[in-house]
Amino acid sequence: MSGSNFGNIFKISTWGESHGVAIGVVIDGCPAGIEVSGEDIQKELDRRRPGQSKVTTSRGEDDKVEILSGVFEGKTTGTPISLMIRNKDSDSSKYKELKNKFRPGHADFTYMKKYGLRDHNGGGRSSGRETAARVAAGAVARKVLKGVSINAYAKQIGRIIAKKIDLKQIEKNDVRCADKDAVKAMEGEIMNARADNDSVGGIVEIIISGSPVGLGDPVFDKLDADLAKALMSIGAVKGIEMGAGFDVACMRGSEDNDQINAKGFVTNNSGGILGGISTGEDIIIRIAVKPTASIAKEQNTIDVKGKGCKIKVEGRHDPCIVPRIIPVAEAMVALVLADKMLMQRCVK
Amino acid sequence: MSGSNFGNIFKISTWGESHGVAIGVVIDGCPAGIEVSGEDIQKELDRRRPGQSKVTTSRGEDDKVEILSGVFEGKTTGTPISLMIRNKDSDSSKYKELKNKFRPGHADFTYMKKYGLRDHNGGGRSSGRETAARVAAGAVARKVLKGVSINAYAKQIGRIIAKKIDLKQIEKNDVRCADKDAVKAMEGEIMNARADNDSVGGIVEIIISGSPVGLGDPVFDKLDADLAKALMSIGAVKGIEMGAGFDVACMRGSEDNDQINAKGFVTNNSGGILGGISTGEDIIIRIAVKPTASIAKEQNTIDVKGKGCKIKVEGRHDPCIVPRIIPVAEAMVALVLADKMLMQRCVK
Amino acid sequence: MSGSNFGNIFKISTWGESHGVAIGVVIDGCPAGIEVSGEDIQKELDRRRPGQSKVTTSRGEDDKVEILSGVFEGKTTGTPISLMIRNKDSDSSKYKELKNKFRPGHADFTYMKKYGLRDHNGGGRSSGRETAARVAAGAVARKVLKGVSINAYAKQIGRIIAKKIDLKQIEKNDVRCADKDAVKAMEGEIMNARADNDSVGGIVEIIISGSPVGLGDPVFDKLDADLAKALMSIGAVKGIEMGAGFDVACMRGSEDNDQINAKGFVTNNSGGILGGISTGEDIIIRIAVKPTASIAKEQNTIDVKGKGCKIKVEGRHDPCIVPRIIPVAEAMVALVLADKMLMQRCVK
Amino acid sequence: MSGSNFGNIFKISTWGESHGVAIGVVIDGCPAGIEVSGEDIQKELDRRRPGQSKVTTSRGEDDKVEILSGVFEGKTTGTPISLMIRNKDSDSSKYKELKNKFRPGHADFTYMKKYGLRDHNGGGRSSGRETAARVAAGAVARKVLKGVSINAYAKQIGRIIAKKIDLKQIEKNDVRCADKDAVKAMEGEIMNARADNDSVGGIVEIIISGSPVGLGDPVFDKLDADLAKALMSIGAVKGIEMGAGFDVACMRGSEDNDQINAKGFVTNNSGGILGGISTGEDIIIRIAVKPTASIAKEQNTIDVKGKGCKIKVEGRHDPCIVPRIIPVAEAMVALVLADKMLMQRCVK
Repeated sequence: MSGSNFGNIFKISTWGESHGVAIGVVIDGCPAGIEVSGEDIQKELDRRRPGQSKVTTSRGEDDKVEILSGVFEGKTTGTPISLMIRNKDSDSSKYKELKNKFRPGHADFTYMKKYGLRDHNGGGRSSGRETAARVAAGAVARKVLKGVSINAYAKQIGRIIAKKIDLKQIEKNDVRCADKDAVKAMEGEIMNARADNDSVGGIVEIIISGSPVGLGDPVFDKLDADLAKALMSIGAVKGIEMGAGFDVACMRGSEDNDQINAKGFVTNNSGGILGGISTGEDIIIRIAVKPTASIAKEQNTIDVKGKGCKIKVEGRHDPCIVPRIIPVAEAMVALVLADKMLMQRCVK
Repeated sequence: MSGSNFGNIFKISTWGESHGVAIGVVIDGCPAGIEVSGEDIQKELDRRRPGQSKVTTSRGEDDKVEILSGVFEGKTTGTPISLMIRNKDSDSSKYKELKNKFRPGHADFTYMKKYGLRDHNGGGRSSGRETAARVAAGAVARKVLKGVSINAYAKQIGRIIAKKIDLKQIEKNDVRCADKDAVKAMEGEIMNARADNDSVGGIVEIIISGSPVGLGDPVFDKLDADLAKALMSIGAVKGIEMGAGFDVACMRGSEDNDQINAKGFVTNNSGGILGGISTGEDIIIRIAVKPTASIAKEQNTIDVKGKGCKIKVEGRHDPCIVPRIIPVAEAMVALVLADKMLMQRCVK
Repeated sequence: MSGSNFGNIFKISTWGESHGVAIGVVIDGCPAGIEVSGEDIQKELDRRRPGQSKVTTSRGEDDKVEILSGVFEGKTTGTPISLMIRNKDSDSSKYKELKNKFRPGHADFTYMKKYGLRDHNGGGRSSGRETAARVAAGAVARKVLKGVSINAYAKQIGRIIAKKIDLKQIEKNDVRCADKDAVKAMEGEIMNARADNDSVGGIVEIIISGSPVGLGDPVFDKLDADLAKALMSIGAVKGIEMGAGFDVACMRGSEDNDQINAKGFVTNNSGGILGGISTGEDIIIRIAVKPTASIAKEQNTIDVKGKGCKIKVEGRHDPCIVPRIIPVAEAMVALVLADKMLMQRCVK
Repeated sequence: MSGSNFGNIFKISTWGESHGVAIGVVIDGCPAGIEVSGEDIQKELDRRRPGQSKVTTSRGEDDKVEILSGVFEGKTTGTPISLMIRNKDSDSSKYKELKNKFRPGHADFTYMKKYGLRDHNGGGRSSGRETAARVAAGAVARKVLKGVSINAYAKQIGRIIAKKIDLKQIEKNDVRCADKDAVKAMEGEIMNARADNDSVGGIVEIIISGSPVGLGDPVFDKLDADLAKALMSIGAVKGIEMGAGFDVACMRGSEDNDQINAKGFVTNNSGGILGGISTGEDIIIRIAVKPTASIAKEQNTIDVKGKGCKIKVEGRHDPCIVPRIIPVAEAMVALVLADKMLMQRCVK
C-alpha cells in the first residue's frame, strides 16, 4: 500500500493505527514563515475529538498534538512538519471477541483479503481514528489559506433537513447544524437511533468563501476532481455533489447555466467551479455520510474461516458520524486548497 | 498547469486543443506483452465520436487513431505508447463571433483568469474534445483488465428514469439506455430540448463486474476516492455516488450495512467497496451529468472587458451529452482499475 | 515501465523508438505566456542532429520538430505542449543480422530480460535517438530560464584534455571544445579510433551561469541530486562530479571549504551548490562519457539462445559521442533548473 | 520545500532537525508480511551512530529507534511504518556563538537565502543528523531485498588507497576499509587531520551482489540514474561513478564494452548496469566524500549582515566522515533497490 500520501506541493503523509502507540502526519512543502502554533492545531482536533457532546461517542480521548519538527520560534521553516498524537491506553478487550469476525459495513473483510492479515484492534489503520491526523494537517493548511473561510454543517440527519443557513449557528449546537430550528429534530433522530442500538446517516454541506479565482489544474487535477477524491477518501462518505449536483439531471441548460452580468455571476449552480477552476464565487459541496457501521444490533456475518455467525458490535460508538465528520471534511478541503494555491504560483 | 497526467503506475499524459493540429495521449507504465491493436482503440473512439446518431451533434469527425510508439508486432513492449488523433480542418468561424464573450456554463471565464489568455477556438483545451484522448487510453487499459467488464448506461435523461437494467440493450439504442422501455421517452426529452434551442441533463450508472477483491490503496488512494476524482474530472459531471449513495442520509446502519453469510454479501449498499477496497461484488457508481452548456437560446453574459451583452451559442452541439459521455466514463474507470491492479502486485 | 516521465512541476513525458514512426515529448506544467517558436526548438535539435560534422556519424536526419499543442499565437498557453519529430524511413536491414545477437555495451540483453521481448530495430527505445525528445523539451525549458546560461563543452576526448575555457569557441569547432588549442588533437583521437573500427570516450564539463541563489529542495530533491539523476539518465554517462568532484578525496577541509568575504565566495570548490541549494556562483559539473558501444571491430557475444558468437556492429555510428551529447546534457540541466525555479515559487 | 520524500512505490518521508525533539521517517508502500524488528533497525543505526570509535566524533548519542506504526505481531501490515529517534538533550551553546555567521562549506548561507530564515542550532534540517532517518528506513528496505547484499567500504581516505577487497574486513576496523593492510595508514590520515584542527575526504566503493537482472526503469528512472540521485542527496557527496566510471574517458569501445560468452559477461566495466537496467552482475559504485566542513581551524566568512569576520567551528566533529557515511550510502542503495524490485512486478 502506497496510498497514505496526499497532495502535490503541500504534501502530507499520515500514519498510525487505532490501537497503536500513536498516530501522526508529516507535512512536506508548507512554505516557510507561516505562523503556526500548537493551539491552532489543537483547536481543530478538539472539534473532532470523541466525547465532546451528548450526540457523539462517550469515549474520551485527549488527542493532544505534539509538534516534532518544522516549526522554529513560532514559524514554519520550510522543512517537514511532523505532528504526533499519542493514543491513550485503550481497552481493546472489546475487540478480542470480534477478532475472528468480519464486522458488516467495515473494512475488516477487504483488509484481510488485500494484505493477507488484519490488525483486529479497533480496525487498525481503517479506523476513523486515522482522520485525526488529517485534521491536524488541515489546521496547518488553513494557516496558508489567508482570507479563505471553510465552513461545513449538518444539512441533513436522517429525515430532518436544514432549511436555513446561518454559519454562526454551527458551533453553537451539538449536531453542527446551520439552521437552529432543525437542531432539536436532528438530535432526536440520533437519540432514537441510539436507543434502537442502531445508527443514522446524513448530509454535510461545505461552503468555501473567499477562494481566489483560478484554482484548479485541468484536465485531471481539476479543483472539483481533487475535492471529490479528498472527500471520498473519508471513510463514511458515499456521495459527493458540487453546486446543483444531482439536480442537474432534470435541468435544462438554460436553467443550469449561470448567466453573467456586469456585477458577476447571477446564479451559482456551478458551485463556484467552471471547467475545474474556481470562479471566485462560493464553492458549494455536499457529501453523503453513511450511518455508523458499528451498531449493537445483532447482524449476520461470517468469521475468518467463512462460517456464518452473529455479531453485535458493542462499545462506545457514535450513533451518527455527521457532527464529527465536519472538521474532517473541512480539513480535507483546506489541504486541497492549500495545494492548489501553491500550484497556482507556477502557472503564469 | 501540471494537471494533464493521471495514474501512478499506469500513467497517462494527455495533450491537445479542440481546434489545434491533433490531440493525443502518452501511456507510460503499460506492462509488456499485452496484445493491442488499432481496432481495439478505434472501436471505443467510434462510440464517443460525434455524429454517430440522431441524438448527438451532427458534426462528423473520423477520429482515426494512430499508434506512434510502444507497440511492436501487435504487442506492447513496456515502453511508452503514444496515440494521436488528428483534428479535421474545422470551421472555427462560428467561434470568431464568440471570441470576446464568455459562454455561460463554460470554462472561458476561468481559463482567462487562470492563464491570462484564452484559446477561443472551440474552447481550446477545455473542450470536450479532449476526452477522445482519455477514451483511447482507456481502450488500452481495458486490455490490461482481463475478466473485468465495465458497462455504463443512461439511468436518467431529464425526467425519464430507467426502471430495468439489461446491459445487452445499451448499444442497441441511441441514448445508451439499459431499459428498452425508457428509450423512446428519453429520446423525446432530448428532441424537445433541441427544439427549444436548449439542452438537458441526466444520470449515468456504471456497473463493473468481475473486479478482483483487494483493489484500492487506503487511506487516500482508496478505490472510491480515485474513481471519484477520475469521473469528476470529466467536464460535465457535477455529482458522484457509490452504491446506496445519497440515500444513505435517511438510512439506519442496520439497513445500510451489507450483512454477510456463507455465500457472500447479502446486499450491496456499499457499491462493491468497503474501506476504499473492492469487495469483489459489482462496483456500482452513478454520476450526474449537467445539460450541455452550449445552447442556441439567448443568454446574458459579459465580454472580456466586463461589459454586459447577449450571447447565442450556435453551432452543432449535443442537446444531451449523456450518450457520448458513457464511453468516456467507462474509460476513466478502466484507467483507475488498471492502475490499481498493477499497484496491487506490490502489496504482498 | 513507468520511467519516461521527468520533473515535478515542469513535467515531461517522452515517447518513441529508434525505428518507429516518430519520437516526441509532452511537456505539462510550462507556465503560460512564454514565447516559444519552432525555431527555438529546431536550433537545439540541429546541434544534436546526426551528420552535422566530420567527427559524427554520416547518417543524415532532418529531425524537424512539429508543435502539436500548447502554443497559441506564439506563446505558451499553460496547457500541455506536444512536440513530435518524425523518423525518416531508415534502413533497418543492418539490424536484421543483429536481430538475435546481444550487442556488447548495449541494452539489448537487459531489455530482453526485463520486458521479455526486444525491439531489435536500432535498439528501439534504448537508442540514443530518444534523446532528441529531451533536447526538444530542453529548448522550451531554456525559454523559462531567463538570464541563466548553460554551456557544456568537451573537456577531454581520449587522452587529450582542454586546458583553457573560452565559451565562445565551443560552437566554432566540430568537437565542441572550449579550448581551441586542443581541438585538433581531440579530432585526431576521434579519427584514429574510427580508423581502428573503434570508438573513444571523454569528459564533458557543464558551466551554468546566472542561476539564482536558492534552487534545490533538500533533503532528497537537492539541486545536485536531481542534476545527477538527470545526467546519469543519459545513455553513455558513467560518472558525474560537482565542483572539486573526486579531487575532494585528497583534500583537507581547510582547502575544500569555500571561504567567504564581503565580495562573496573566494573559491568555488562546491561547484555552486551547498547543502543541495544553489549559492548563486557558477554551477560546475563534469560527466564521464563512455566510448560508443557500437563498433565495427569484432567482439564476442551470445545470441538470444545463450550461444557464443562473434559480432561486428557495422553501420554509421559516431566514433565519439561527446560532441553530440553536449546539447543533450545542456537540455537535461535546463529541465532540472526550470523545474526548480518553479518549485522555488512555493517556498516562501 | 517539498523534497523530503523519496521513492515511487516504497516511499519514504523523512522529518526532523538536528536539535529538535526528534527525527524520523514514515515508510509508505512496504509490502505486508515482511518480518521487521526493532533490532534489525537498531543494528544499522548503531553503525551510523556518533561516538562509536576513535576516528569519529566523541559525541555520544543512543539513537534508539521507536516503531510507532505499521508493524503488528512482528510483521509489516502494509500500512505506513513510522519510525522515530529522539534527540538527546544536546548542548546547543556552541552554536549560539555561530548564530550570526555562515559556516564555510555548510548550507547556512543557502538555507537563509532560500527560506528567509535559519535554524542555527546545529544546522537544523541540513545537519548530517538527518541521515539517521535514512538509515532506519534503509534497514526496512533491506528486509524486502532478500538475497541481495549491499556492502560499502572506505576505498580511499586522503592519499591512502585500498588495494585489496575483502568484504569480511569492513566491520573489523574503525575506518571500514576492505583492505586490512591500508587501515593503519588511513587512520593516520584521519588522526593527522584532527591534530591540525582540520578534516580529510575520501572515496567509498559500494558493491551490490545478488541483484536480480532487470531492475531499472528507462528512460529517466534508470537504475544508475536513481542511484546517482540517492547518493548525491547525501550531504558530503561530490561525485559518483559506476563501473569503469571516469576512466572511460581514455578508453576505447573495444576495451570498455563488456564482451559476453556462454558463461556470462567477461568483464564488468558497466558496473552491472546496461541501458539503465541491472545485468545481474555485481553493481559497482564509487562516491567522492568531501572533508568534513566543520573544522576548528580559523576561516574567513561573513555574518548575516554580509560583514566579513573570522570563524572557528569548535565542537565534536568527525575529522573524516567516510566511516560513518558508509551505512548511509548502503541505506540509500537499499531504498532504491527495494523500490525498483516492487516496480519490476508491474512490468510484465
